[in-house]
Amino acid sequence: MAAARIWTAALLVIGDEILSGRTQDRNIAQLATWLNAQGIRLAEARVVADDIGQIGAAVNTLRDTHDYLFTTGGIGPTHDDITVDAIAAALGVSVIIHPRARAMLEKHYETRGGTTEARLRMARVPEGAELIENPLSGAPGIRLGNIFILAGIPGVAAQMLEALSGTLEGGQPMLSGTIGCWVPESEVADLLGAVERDHAGCQIGSYPFYKDGRAGANFVVRATDQAALDACLADLAARLTAAGRESFPGGI
Amino acid sequence: MAAARIWTAALLVIGDEILSGRTQDRNIAQLATWLNAQGIRLAEARVVADDIGQIGAAVNTLRDTHDYLFTTGGIGPTHDDITVDAIAAALGVSVIIHPRARAMLEKHYETRGGTTEARLRMARVPEGAELIENPLSGAPGIRLGNIFILAGIPGVAAQMLEALSGTLEGGQPMLSGTIGCWVPESEVADLLGAVERDHAGCQIGSYPFYKDGRAGANFVVRATDQAALDACLADLAARLTAAGRESFPGGI
Repeated sequence: MAAARIWTAALLVIGDEILSGRTQDRNIAQLATWLNAQGIRLAEARVVADDIGQIGAAVNTLRDTHDYLFTTGGIGPTHDDITVDAIAAALGVSVIIHPRARAMLEKHYETRGGTTEARLRMARVPEGAELIENPLSGAPGIRLGNIFILAGIPGVAAQMLEALSGTLEGGQPMLSGTIGCWVPESEVADLLGAVERDHAGCQIGSYPFYKDGRAGANFVVRATDQAALDACLADLAARLTAAGRESFPGGI
Repeated sequence: MAAARIWTAALLVIGDEILSGRTQDRNIAQLATWLNAQGIRLAEARVVADDIGQIGAAVNTLRDTHDYLFTTGGIGPTHDDITVDAIAAALGVSVIIHPRARAMLEKHYETRGGTTEARLRMARVPEGAELIENPLSGAPGIRLGNIFILAGIPGVAAQMLEALSGTLEGGQPMLSGTIGCWVPESEVADLLGAVERDHAGCQIGSYPFYKDGRAGANFVVRATDQAALDACLADLAARLTAAGRESFPGGI
């Protein structure tokens, strides 16, 4: 069997609010989960400040090294929203007002005080871009080649991802299964390594935790093939049982 | 007044569990908050997979471009814990067993079944490294030059940061204040830009939200000088009032 092509994406999270600690990022996990279902692997994420140069450098690196690049943040109406300008500058294209985006904003703000110069900032796109629908706030996301420019508010970004679902070329969706065990992971480190070696195409991650004063771990198996995944999970559970450890399908 | 030296740090989050969406990262926000108090700015964060090459490339880029580099994740006892090996390889140094780390682990596991080969993996450090204490699990963090290698579990990373508090050279701590307002940010975009321009040394971030069907925003002012911060916050509140908008100190 030829090795399946792996499709990868990178995420660039843009915003001082993440780097200052004010806002807990939720877009990395949200995008990762959505990408799994599209058969695309999130291979890298970066967080940069609201800085034209930093954004541009990261965009040019990441769009070249991955099939897809997503960005979140910095597409609102205020002075610190500079994502569109930074990406246009990085790509060497102009910023234009997208006619349909303008129409969408005019419709949205018809009953909300009308459009203003600030609100029309949200219709600005790099030349050549298409829009990604966003029923929630009227302000659309933007697609330009393999770059997808999404909102920073996770709920709005989710709407944009919903609009993109099933439209991107990807490989087989990544499947996963979890087994939990009340065991310090250090006691089963060799066992885990051996199971992974015996099941080609499966990766096992070990995620320890402390709960109620006890050490435990969840073991997550990932694979694109359901039968391989099931066999690996069954083998892992059997070897934990043989080692005198009760295991919990689905994790703890 | 001469411009104050700005100290910057980068964070490298290591782990498939973050990029798969299984685990919500909490270390970016945690480190950012801690750094603010040390007078160091988190300037960039990256998330990479459990991959020797990817970790090494990011380490070599980030340690050169920032005063400090922190990493989280991948220092446990299992097969997917490869951070120490990746960093040692990136720096071209050997991996050795640190005598004091071994002693700490032997003491910790004395009443917990003793040390094993897997557990002793947690005493491995790049040659030349010092330890960062960790009373919680016995496994220490690692310092090598300007690189700080921390655990991935946020509670354990927090203990290691606590041990480092006050030991790193930094500048003035970053201060911030928040004003909340029930206003679509697009209506006050010009006002915000004008206030920021009038208050040198202050940055204003605008963070919109939707709550109970209403649009609002929190405006966060950041500065290293308390008087400048207070003046900017007062001016912003006054201009919001003049625009007919009630504002809420501390945010909504």
